[in-house]
Amino acid sequence: MTLHRYRSHTCGALTAADAGNNVRLSGWVHRVRDHGGLLFIDLRDHYGITQCVIDPDSAAFSTAETVRSEWVLRIDGEVKLRDAAAVNSNIATGAIEVFIREIEVLSEARELPLPVFGDAEYPEDIRLRYRFLDLRREKLHANILKRTKIISAMREGMEDAGFTEFSTPILTASSPEGARDFLVPSRIHPGKFFALPQAPQQYKQLLMVAGFDRYFQVAPCFRDEDPRADRLPGEFYQLDLEMSFVTQEDVWNTVEPVMTSIFEQFAEGKRVTGTWPRIPYDEAVRKYGSDKPDLRNPIEMQAVTDHFRGSGFKVFAGQIEADSKVEVWAIPAPTGGSRAFCDRMNAWAQGEGQPGLGYIFFKDGQGSGPIAKNIGEERTEAIRVQLGLADGDAVFFVCGRPEKFYKFAGEARNKAGFDLDLVDTEQFALCWIVDFPFYEWNEDEKRIDFAHNPFSMPQGGRDALDSADPLSLKAYQYDAVCNGFEIASGSIRNQEPETMVKAFELTGKSREEVEEQFGGLYRAFQYGAPPHGGAAFGIDRIVMLLCGAQNLREITAFPMNQQAEDLLMGAPSEASAKQLRELSIRLNVQK
Amino acid sequence: MTLHRYRSHTCGALTAADAGNNVRLSGWVHRVRDHGGLLFIDLRDHYGITQCVIDPDSAAFSTAETVRSEWVLRIDGEVKLRDAAAVNSNIATGAIEVFIREIEVLSEARELPLPVFGDAEYPEDIRLRYRFLDLRREKLHANILKRTKIISAMREGMEDAGFTEFSTPILTASSPEGARDFLVPSRIHPGKFFALPQAPQQYKQLLMVAGFDRYFQVAPCFRDEDPRADRLPGEFYQLDLEMSFVTQEDVWNTVEPVMTSIFEQFAEGKRVTGTWPRIPYDEAVRKYGSDKPDLRNPIEMQAVTDHFRGSGFKVFAGQIEADSKVEVWAIPAPTGGSRAFCDRMNAWAQGEGQPGLGYIFFKDGQGSGPIAKNIGEERTEAIRVQLGLADGDAVFFVCGRPEKFYKFAGEARNKAGFDLDLVDTEQFALCWIVDFPFYEWNEDEKRIDFAHNPFSMPQGGRDALDSADPLSLKAYQYDAVCNGFEIASGSIRNQEPETMVKAFELTGKSREEVEEQFGGLYRAFQYGAPPHGGAAFGIDRIVMLLCGAQNLREITAFPMNQQAEDLLMGAPSEASAKQLRELSIRLNVQK
Repeated sequence: MTLHRYRSHTCGALTAADAGNNVRLSGWVHRVRDHGGLLFIDLRDHYGITQCVIDPDSAAFSTAETVRSEWVLRIDGEVKLRDAAAVNSNIATGAIEVFIREIEVLSEARELPLPVFGDAEYPEDIRLRYRFLDLRREKLHANILKRTKIISAMREGMEDAGFTEFSTPILTASSPEGARDFLVPSRIHPGKFFALPQAPQQYKQLLMVAGFDRYFQVAPCFRDEDPRADRLPGEFYQLDLEMSFVTQEDVWNTVEPVMTSIFEQFAEGKRVTGTWPRIPYDEAVRKYGSDKPDLRNPIEMQAVTDHFRGSGFKVFAGQIEADSKVEVWAIPAPTGGSRAFCDRMNAWAQGEGQPGLGYIFFKDGQGSGPIAKNIGEERTEAIRVQLGLADGDAVFFVCGRPEKFYKFAGEARNKAGFDLDLVDTEQFALCWIVDFPFYEWNEDEKRIDFAHNPFSMPQGGRDALDSADPLSLKAYQYDAVCNGFEIASGSIRNQEPETMVKAFELTGKSREEVEEQFGGLYRAFQYGAPPHGGAAFGIDRIVMLLCGAQNLREITAFPMNQQAEDLLMGAPSEASAKQLRELSIRLNVQK
Repeated sequence: MTLHRYRSHTCGALTAADAGNNVRLSGWVHRVRDHGGLLFIDLRDHYGITQCVIDPDSAAFSTAETVRSEWVLRIDGEVKLRDAAAVNSNIATGAIEVFIREIEVLSEARELPLPVFGDAEYPEDIRLRYRFLDLRREKLHANILKRTKIISAMREGMEDAGFTEFSTPILTASSPEGARDFLVPSRIHPGKFFALPQAPQQYKQLLMVAGFDRYFQVAPCFRDEDPRADRLPGEFYQLDLEMSFVTQEDVWNTVEPVMTSIFEQFAEGKRVTGTWPRIPYDEAVRKYGSDKPDLRNPIEMQAVTDHFRGSGFKVFAGQIEADSKVEVWAIPAPTGGSRAFCDRMNAWAQGEGQPGLGYIFFKDGQGSGPIAKNIGEERTEAIRVQLGLADGDAVFFVCGRPEKFYKFAGEARNKAGFDLDLVDTEQFALCWIVDFPFYEWNEDEKRIDFAHNPFSMPQGGRDALDSADPLSLKAYQYDAVCNGFEIASGSIRNQEPETMVKAFELTGKSREEVEEQFGGLYRAFQYGAPPHGGAAFGIDRIVMLLCGAQNLREITAFPMNQQAEDLLMGAPSEASAKQLRELSIRLNVQK
């Protein structure tokens, strides 16, 4: 039988059933071990690792002696069963080894700047410059593959749900809203520029206006933002989707099962929320101190203002009296009922720049601590009952105007939950946050501004814009949240041109500005636009969650570094004078 | 029963089985007809068209009277069977109509700049500016959907064949080979630029070096080329793939069934080549006058030089005597055996700038025409026998050095085949063209240059580069061709750093230049690079073939025009002074 030029089997294929066969493998030298004359070469490819053995009598031994880690070899040999004691049940090929008859060196390797075998930490610049070696390492290789599988499963799930994937243009127009655009000089139109899309938002809406009913895209998006720990410079991917003739409930009911299934497929045994709670924004803020609540944490906050009104704890009682908008929120901390824990929390709060974190802890059938002493037994007991606490538990308090303190309260909730080990980390806790505010107050510019983006429909439609306090308006705007991270954002769109103009006018933009800055979409809405809405899921974040990775560079094959450089390919780099001339630009670099 | 806010059914769903039911539909007014008081509204959505009817007694009639084409309506009504005479078996909903009880206008439409109903031609600038209307039209809507389905089937086929899809960076380094790059100024690194990838070539090879075994990607590619009829400005899509530890036969054997299946799925009854012929480049040129032969055309050319050597046809005989590299090629033209046809071909050739096209045509048992007269009966008969021609057939001749005339000969073959109706257009005729030359002569720069790209492995490897005439070297380089169009190009790569350096040296590039210009890949090859190869299929071209479209704009949702402008979104556009300052560039526009 003629063997294939490079391999009869992959390095993950051979089992005891192959014993006695002559085989051919190709792969990388994972490691070489010298066991009393015998040389063991672990040969690795994408599919697995096979132990190969050669003894000094073999004609190929002189070659075998020269090979080093990460050389690429073709090996011919016979499959033999390992001794029972040498069987490795952790790997698929652990029952056999290949006795080497012939070795062909397909590619040598220089001395390695970072090893592939083992999982020692290496500096990031080395890892990125030699990414082709880094990617051979077990954990990163597995993460990248998992990423590809998650994306493939997303596509399958969306197609099964009746969506069609469209590619939208990457060379497009600058969008006046949102983050900073990457620009691409046009050679053919001197002085003009394309922009890379921050998201395919306008195109997906145009597809709905064009009569395509259910769109999705694994969409590359581009934002020229300053590097941040949780965002790669340059490009990122969204699972972008849009539907026509839908309410927001339709979007949730359609997308939720798809995403639940994705999480379940890759959760590796962790629990996944089957039916996602739909939590109004206001409730999320009050209960969790965040619009991205980590629902793995069972702590729910409650307002306990009345228990402090007129009480002996003057710090709170005075504020409540002075300002009708002041509230006191309680952060229950089950099992936190010791002075030591409460003092640690208080010290942490001071470290966060807060004056402190008042508390009561319960033991021996009563509440303890300075606050309990100040407000007395009756009020202390009322608080305990309201929160359902018992001996051994504690409760922390924050007081003030909620919009000023809710984020800190949310952080305290997180800290208490994690420090007390109340958070069940063996799960992916998913929810929708709904009914976001339509507008917010822009303190810098002293004007009303869109809270999310200008594409959402206000609840109540155009009429609602005419009445009431704009800041009290809700939008058909929602986020999906997992374990405290926003993983998606979406809305029912404002597809009525006059409602769009009105919504912008309240932010100070004229009809002419709307026409100029959103011309394509505004024009489209004049010619029969269906009600539509959708969402965009952050693929990188979802992959990070499912890989348990802390850094985007652990789930991206060829990331830039934090200085927005591609160290492997050497980008960005200088352009030639000819290129600049052709693009009708010149450099304007401040020395 | 409460109906959904917008629809209980799509406009393609209702059949006779629904008769008697109350339903709710939403969609666009495809057209309105007034039939003696009754108004017929054809309501259209992505899924189909439903005929809706209203009579003047209905409370909704006053609304119905106001609706115009492309308004978006919600309609409630009762499903009724049509009269037998009115049944339309061409559409899924042709057995029923909906009697309107209620109409809600969801969106009005201004007077249309181009109609959606009907297939009248409209100027391209109107179509692109109002692309959201153009995309509602039946043919374009269907083409775009077919495109998405073809791409989805490609993904499925590649995954089933064991490939994994990776996304490679879009903000990357300028590549010194090939076409012109689009550049993206870096804000963080003043004076430096990213480039958009012309193809993911280097990244896919790096993925192989990183140990991923079978890569593919539906890859956006970017070339800043001057507009051409068969290429959209800006971006295009490739089905890009790469495999490790393979020979070129492995690539063909793996990819061919995937692509055959794609063609079969979308051929709509046309035949598809099951096993693709593998035709060496030299043979393709000699038989078909092209490395992109249209194999639907049965004509195969042959050399007939010897029949003319020393013959009485002095025009050819003289050239043959004067130059040993001169050949005479015959283009057989079955059924073309009339003076009228032969003269037409001759006139066409003169119109193409050729001196003419010599011919013999066969009738009454003998060859006719000036050439037959000049070379005599015996040679004429020998030519007829060699080519297997008979009475009623003809043959055309071209004479000279083949490299000078083969393209024209190929065009004559095409013309004869089509004009004589020999081409069976009810098929997709696929083949591989293999064994391309490794180098070619660059006449402008008077030096040897890579015939395709610098990434291919020369047949015979490094040794072959040391010996022989470089221009005689073949590469492990191949194209896939369908119906006369190149649909793919690929090769086994040169992954040996020293072979790479040597191959470049013969084109005049130094080791230092290779290191500088292909640093990432060159460095990677030093650390254990597997033999690998792959291909890239042109998705746009394949979709055009399968849609029977003549223009890329008929299969692209949001194309630019031939002046590289996006008329819908208004790109490219001017950048603000702030943007330019942030990017450390200024304009340099010649007035």
